[in-house]
Amino acid sequence: MEEKVIPTKLLLDESELPKCWYNLKAILPHEPALNPATLKPCTVEDFKGVFCDELIEQELNEKDEYIEIPDEVIEFYKKVRPSPLIRAYDLEKVLDTPAEIYYKFEGNNTSGSHKLNSAIPQAYYAKKQGLKYLTTETGAGQWGTALSMASAYYGLGLTVYMVKGSAEQKPFRKAVIETYGAKVVPSPSNTTKVGREILEKFPNTTGSLGCAVSEAVEKATETSDCKYVLGSVMDHVILHQTIIGLETKTALEKFGIEPDILISCVGGGSNFGGFVAPFMKDKINGTKNYRIIGVEPKSCPSLTRGKYVYDYGDTGKITPLMKMYTLGNGFMPSSNHAGGLRYHGMNPIVSKLYHEGYIEAVSVEQTKVFEAAVKFAKSEGILPAPESSHTIKVAIDEALKCKETGEKKKIVFCLTGTGYFDLTAYMSYNNGTMQDYVPTEEDLQKGFSSIPDIPQNK
Amino acid sequence: MEEKVIPTKLLLDESELPKCWYNLKAILPHEPALNPATLKPCTVEDFKGVFCDELIEQELNEKDEYIEIPDEVIEFYKKVRPSPLIRAYDLEKVLDTPAEIYYKFEGNNTSGSHKLNSAIPQAYYAKKQGLKYLTTETGAGQWGTALSMASAYYGLGLTVYMVKGSAEQKPFRKAVIETYGAKVVPSPSNTTKVGREILEKFPNTTGSLGCAVSEAVEKATETSDCKYVLGSVMDHVILHQTIIGLETKTALEKFGIEPDILISCVGGGSNFGGFVAPFMKDKINGTKNYRIIGVEPKSCPSLTRGKYVYDYGDTGKITPLMKMYTLGNGFMPSSNHAGGLRYHGMNPIVSKLYHEGYIEAVSVEQTKVFEAAVKFAKSEGILPAPESSHTIKVAIDEALKCKETGEKKKIVFCLTGTGYFDLTAYMSYNNGTMQDYVPTEEDLQKGFSSIPDIPQNK
Repeated sequence: MEEKVIPTKLLLDESELPKCWYNLKAILPHEPALNPATLKPCTVEDFKGVFCDELIEQELNEKDEYIEIPDEVIEFYKKVRPSPLIRAYDLEKVLDTPAEIYYKFEGNNTSGSHKLNSAIPQAYYAKKQGLKYLTTETGAGQWGTALSMASAYYGLGLTVYMVKGSAEQKPFRKAVIETYGAKVVPSPSNTTKVGREILEKFPNTTGSLGCAVSEAVEKATETSDCKYVLGSVMDHVILHQTIIGLETKTALEKFGIEPDILISCVGGGSNFGGFVAPFMKDKINGTKNYRIIGVEPKSCPSLTRGKYVYDYGDTGKITPLMKMYTLGNGFMPSSNHAGGLRYHGMNPIVSKLYHEGYIEAVSVEQTKVFEAAVKFAKSEGILPAPESSHTIKVAIDEALKCKETGEKKKIVFCLTGTGYFDLTAYMSYNNGTMQDYVPTEEDLQKGFSSIPDIPQNK
Repeated sequence: MEEKVIPTKLLLDESELPKCWYNLKAILPHEPALNPATLKPCTVEDFKGVFCDELIEQELNEKDEYIEIPDEVIEFYKKVRPSPLIRAYDLEKVLDTPAEIYYKFEGNNTSGSHKLNSAIPQAYYAKKQGLKYLTTETGAGQWGTALSMASAYYGLGLTVYMVKGSAEQKPFRKAVIETYGAKVVPSPSNTTKVGREILEKFPNTTGSLGCAVSEAVEKATETSDCKYVLGSVMDHVILHQTIIGLETKTALEKFGIEPDILISCVGGGSNFGGFVAPFMKDKINGTKNYRIIGVEPKSCPSLTRGKYVYDYGDTGKITPLMKMYTLGNGFMPSSNHAGGLRYHGMNPIVSKLYHEGYIEAVSVEQTKVFEAAVKFAKSEGILPAPESSHTIKVAIDEALKCKETGEKKKIVFCLTGTGYFDLTAYMSYNNGTMQDYVPTEEDLQKGFSSIPDIPQNK
């Protein structure tokens, strides 16, 4: 057995937990969100009816590079953070690569993913503001689980509008959320006006994320002691997720590791943005020349095949317009098993980074993703979430390139979560029935046609 | 917020990982297992056809107080160990108790429990001996999952005989095991003589653990490159599990904490034995006066209502006879949701400790257990396994006693696993349909009547 200077787990102490989140917009602002009625940049007032005050302030903040993490949030973070950065010694051995592979593991908590990083501050700010209830939507269920944990912790009521098809297919996700005391309402429901309208038109629909958003927003605006929160796409969510990148950076520095490549998957952009933002300053300044790669499914390729334009964040067209890479709010992604990567758009910070050429994007096919997942599980002992497995696929590809060239590159990726609630997907991979899907040009054009017809160059 | 001297997570470095397991039998031997045919103490020869050589040696070792952990096992342990010892600050706050509560968390790995601690060395020794295949049985599925991970890691083939009812009710457990490359055979099956016989007699049976054991043993003895392994009850399993107690002891000493009460649940005895064994020397010597409590379900009360006699370890009466607390090998436990605690007997080391008065035992009702589990989940953010929740119930009870007396006792418990695959149980608790079951005197007498009629006093 070879001499190891680097331990398997590059641990940080509680005292090394970051005290501030990193706000990349202070050095790289992006085009503002627009009020769809006026086409004017959104202000605090535009968000006020829906979101908590502190989150609106964070959403619009382009001034402070570091934003303090409240003590009460840090107290919770200490239960599950600093999360481990792990050297993938066994995966390296299986690949027989000279590359060094490291992964930041965000799945060691009951929500099973990084979503908890933002759920905790969001619930905390709501509590601090004197609110009593929150509403949100959930598709795959990771965000709903994370927010139910956070709401239980801070003593807030929570209603989760869960896409009906998902609630029916994933009764155990629903059970976890209910165990934490939240109310799960399969969407569309007759608890809201928009839900009733949709049910009347399509009585047999299994729902959609767009519809669940609309219901959650409507419910939140009914009473003054309730607000709506969400788990991705928004800039304040990325802000909270920078805890991932900050810890990774601290750990790499502590153990004297200079990364060459940073990789993570992109859906709405929250884990990716949070993972890479703290590394971007040096990249933008030109002091470091990391390669930074976002990985998306070939079935929903917003960065690699989308347009950089203003579009709605939801299919119901009720959100502000955001300048982002999008396949069009009407794009219907296939039933890719990675529910967390099935989104038509991309967070504006991540979109800006890509547009400016600071990051790369790669799209990968589902069956190849699961092949990589199983390889990882057998060597590293962790069953990864389908979303995270996209990242693993590209990390393995990069490590195998090093095998050819003999380069000892240092590859660092974010393992966002575990796949314990995604076993239907693994079963279809195991029994050979999993399908790949790549949208045709026609599919894309159909999606693009839903992009609103507004002046795109401001 | 109060000043905290103790961090939330009492972490150990990789360098503080124990180098040896602790063999309690070197200072407290127990009555030997007997060959049921001869009623003579079992020798290496009695075990040889079924078990790996190194495990037999460990099973019979009453000489060495410390047994070295192989480097290759330590390499794997480093991925998931040292496991965190966590101060339950939030649970203390919710209970408003002056007690300090700590839990050793063994659930942060894909098997979801402490079972991996023994699966890894068992697979390693098999590999080292040149074996190609292993067989085992699994009921609830935690052990099967852990062993599938270990077998994949060391490149061994594995067949898991999974109780048919469990395989049908828990398709996701089966899916995880298969993802790691193991073969799952619902038991009884037509792959063994004993399976075919049972199927002929009871074509509609949903199987039993006893039958699955018999099939796995039969299969293992068919070829010379295959052995049978199991995940509880045996002394060598407890030996491997002492990594839990050793780490706990090291962490407590590192942070200057003197425990007053140690608590864990008892089924076959493996987590409990492993957790408490390293603390027993001081207790036996009289240098420390910890209270040590084993918690069992009221529905399967082997310590609190069983007899301390020689009995078979399985319902099929094929194992050696062991001197243990037992409800009788024919005792039929109710469908308690904590599958890991549904065993008629108790490991001989744990039985000896109880018989000698070194440990206490408490039995608790299922609904109270889940009430404690939900309280824990909401405050500490971890969804506990039903088995582990038995421990939590008693830890909370002890902390509440401290609230009455004002004592600042230090309570340390082992949180053996997570409940992600036990959500059917949580659902029945959440919707109020969960039932408690306590065996009647008649039920017990029926079980006792299955205890073999042999001279019980040697």
